[in-house]
Amino acid sequence: MAGTTDTTSSTGTPAKPDPGGLADVGVTGLAVMGRNLARNIARHGHAVAVHNRTASRVDELVAEHGDEGDFRPSHSLEDFVASLAKPRRVIIMVKAGKATDAVIDELVPLLEEGDIVVDAGNAHYEDTRRREHDLRERGLHFVGTGVSGGEEGALEGPSIMPGGSRESYEALGPILEDIAVDVDGTPCCTYVGPDGAGHFVKMVHNGIEYADMQLIAEAYDLLRQGLDLSPAQLADVFDEWNEGDLESFLVEITARVLRHEDASTGKPFVDVVVDQAEQKGTGRWTVQSALDLGVPVTGIAEAVFARALSGAAGQRKAVLDRGLAGPSGGRLEGADAEGFVDAVRQALYASKVVAYAQGFDQITAASQEYGWDIDRGMMATIWRGGCIIRARFLDRIKQAYDKDQHLASLLLDDYFAEAVADAQDAWRRVVATAVRLGVPAPGFSSALAYYDGLRRDRLPAALVQGLRDLFGAHTYRRVDAEGTYHVLWSEDGSEERQDTQDQGSHSPH
Amino acid sequence: MAGTTDTTSSTGTPAKPDPGGLADVGVTGLAVMGRNLARNIARHGHAVAVHNRTASRVDELVAEHGDEGDFRPSHSLEDFVASLAKPRRVIIMVKAGKATDAVIDELVPLLEEGDIVVDAGNAHYEDTRRREHDLRERGLHFVGTGVSGGEEGALEGPSIMPGGSRESYEALGPILEDIAVDVDGTPCCTYVGPDGAGHFVKMVHNGIEYADMQLIAEAYDLLRQGLDLSPAQLADVFDEWNEGDLESFLVEITARVLRHEDASTGKPFVDVVVDQAEQKGTGRWTVQSALDLGVPVTGIAEAVFARALSGAAGQRKAVLDRGLAGPSGGRLEGADAEGFVDAVRQALYASKVVAYAQGFDQITAASQEYGWDIDRGMMATIWRGGCIIRARFLDRIKQAYDKDQHLASLLLDDYFAEAVADAQDAWRRVVATAVRLGVPAPGFSSALAYYDGLRRDRLPAALVQGLRDLFGAHTYRRVDAEGTYHVLWSEDGSEERQDTQDQGSHSPH
Repeated sequence: MAGTTDTTSSTGTPAKPDPGGLADVGVTGLAVMGRNLARNIARHGHAVAVHNRTASRVDELVAEHGDEGDFRPSHSLEDFVASLAKPRRVIIMVKAGKATDAVIDELVPLLEEGDIVVDAGNAHYEDTRRREHDLRERGLHFVGTGVSGGEEGALEGPSIMPGGSRESYEALGPILEDIAVDVDGTPCCTYVGPDGAGHFVKMVHNGIEYADMQLIAEAYDLLRQGLDLSPAQLADVFDEWNEGDLESFLVEITARVLRHEDASTGKPFVDVVVDQAEQKGTGRWTVQSALDLGVPVTGIAEAVFARALSGAAGQRKAVLDRGLAGPSGGRLEGADAEGFVDAVRQALYASKVVAYAQGFDQITAASQEYGWDIDRGMMATIWRGGCIIRARFLDRIKQAYDKDQHLASLLLDDYFAEAVADAQDAWRRVVATAVRLGVPAPGFSSALAYYDGLRRDRLPAALVQGLRDLFGAHTYRRVDAEGTYHVLWSEDGSEERQDTQDQGSHSPH
Repeated sequence: MAGTTDTTSSTGTPAKPDPGGLADVGVTGLAVMGRNLARNIARHGHAVAVHNRTASRVDELVAEHGDEGDFRPSHSLEDFVASLAKPRRVIIMVKAGKATDAVIDELVPLLEEGDIVVDAGNAHYEDTRRREHDLRERGLHFVGTGVSGGEEGALEGPSIMPGGSRESYEALGPILEDIAVDVDGTPCCTYVGPDGAGHFVKMVHNGIEYADMQLIAEAYDLLRQGLDLSPAQLADVFDEWNEGDLESFLVEITARVLRHEDASTGKPFVDVVVDQAEQKGTGRWTVQSALDLGVPVTGIAEAVFARALSGAAGQRKAVLDRGLAGPSGGRLEGADAEGFVDAVRQALYASKVVAYAQGFDQITAASQEYGWDIDRGMMATIWRGGCIIRARFLDRIKQAYDKDQHLASLLLDDYFAEAVADAQDAWRRVVATAVRLGVPAPGFSSALAYYDGLRRDRLPAALVQGLRDLFGAHTYRRVDAEGTYHVLWSEDGSEERQDTQDQGSHSPH
């Protein structure tokens, strides 16, 4: 496990239940995530009111886990709300979308000014912004919070990313920090920012997770193809990598998955799994948002598209049936093989730095766009435990932002700049090898192309602007003078200054 | 110019004006695009009613161009509608978004059942779907149509992509086909499909245009860096390329832009243009839609992100100030230089085939998703003239779909498969060279990675599925049996069949 994750209760034994008093907090929606969150809260000594549309789930929870703490079961939303101390703190844990809106609609008339409604589901941050706005108008606090770590995390200690008003965090934060996992004595929970900030950061977390997994998959693929290593041998490689800079939950479980043997066939587990990666939307959301914000998140985009390509079963079958030209793997020999494992490790690390740099750029852009004032170092801090991308690496990110709050790119921090500098030759070697072998490495190669683009003094975008001016009169700026200009391409080719407005507004290219 | 584009009127002299009768069609919104469209219609012998919110534009149009045909000016929307023969055909050419809705709202009460409202602006196809639905409920036809070719195209002959009901096309098609440009005797206009189909296809056209321009820019950049060729020398290279398979409007104007000299400095024009490519949204829309549809359009995405990166001026400045490690160009020598120009040509062509294949996949997916039944060969046909991506190449695409209407990927067509097979070595050489020189080639490299992914029998997506099952109980399928499965990772590692529902539904990765 990455970091020094302490999943034991930070309060020791639960406080003595006080069945007469009101509950500290309530949870409605007792599917596995909500149930585990409620148990986590109860185990930390807080009296927790529990409610579910299907009442049997309430009774089941109390019957099975009632001895873990002070549960206050309710069979109606009215009783549930009545059982809460004020300001009421109500955590909703239902399916994102209409179900969430339905619960909010039912709940709001029962609440009073100053009460706090928490959506701990996986809402889109735009929905959270809308709901926060609506509830604020009615005098209520709405907190959209990311909760990462899955079922196990919800019970044992997740990473928690709450948005909403600062005031609401004062009332809610202590409980959330109690139930979040601790790393080095710091809870993996902090106030993220207003309205949608929490769910936004959780979304980007998931997007980064897509990129991280894609890069790991490419590293595995390249080593297996290039060196003909077995999954079990590769499990050893990943275990070894997990001792160094790449130490992370995902690298750790990659070793576990690669070592796992399928019971019914005796084959490596990874070879009996259909090679079509599914997705549930947050990676897609991340890229769509980045497009709106104008932030290049090529690593996440290539990862999402790689999953989409893998899932295009009919098309892939048609291609295999016909056969398309190109090299297909082939074992590396001699100097090509020498040091290749370590070269792939370095390429993986450099590409991962790029993917995280892009993700943090997206957080930066959204924070500016929406006025969230997100502390990026704190985001790295609360991702060190509980969540899927937890990694030693995140300490480095925290340190980078501690050193410079206005860091223009993670790649500019001395540690990362040097790490990527050190990885240069290996990174380029690995991408060139993938190209030669015909092994797809969209994540590695797009990370490298981004890096080379970022550090370029003159990009060929100037040519693109020239083309746009020619075909659409979209104008351009000059390197040596203020203003916007247009060449009269179909007349004498002279230049006109055009500062009033874009003449090509009807042709959106 | 690509293709045999005939921009002369297909009807010769205009029909004799009949000022007493009603107009054949009306245009409201007389900014440059609307004005040129109206003139194009009038020049083809159709009586065209013209209207604009600011009435002076109506009078200006008639004063300046009244002799080109039969214009029927109106100063009010009521008069404008009254001047139209039934079923009325009203073309709206205003800014996309609220302005379009405002005109529709004003117009609708004046219309009668069976009248046809045409939005020729650059609407998002989802807006077009909504408007078509609303107007259909009121007994009106709504046609969202893509019009490509900019100001000049609108006047001389654009490529036109109308959606909406088939019935509306019967009344509207003849006029649109009249004013569209002809290639080899075929008008670049056809019925695309219901509701948003026309605007969707126009959007993908623009997305492909982004990819095409990015690939051209990378080719230019690589040749300039690698061979130290001047922009004027590169203009000759693109001129030569325009004689072969790459023959297209964009390659033609690339030569023009590269040859252009800046008057005030005497420098190559491309060197005085700020290297920040702007964008107006359709590229972004294309990628966002592709994400929703689950279609990997890596070429378009990398192009949109390359523009975003180029525009990140502050970040790029900070990077240049610090300096990031890596090779910076460097001239190719000896064997590395030999044949490099032609290798880049082949890499450009192969990458372009991939970008178009992805764009057509997106049209395929949307056509299925929305029940549009789009004829993909006809889309290639109507893009042969008038629009920005017009190219010889599109004849090949048309032929590919003529041969096989159900083609699973353009890359599977014999012509394209062989073209890409022939380009293999050059393509890989060019990407590897870009990686070695440190010249960013995100379009070339991502196209190649996509190609290698598409033709792969086993993708490492199986590992991604394994990881997802471990951390989120997202389940997987087996290559050797039906059903979905889950490994009890934290118990004895045995496998459970889980066909009821995804147990990990609360953790959307």
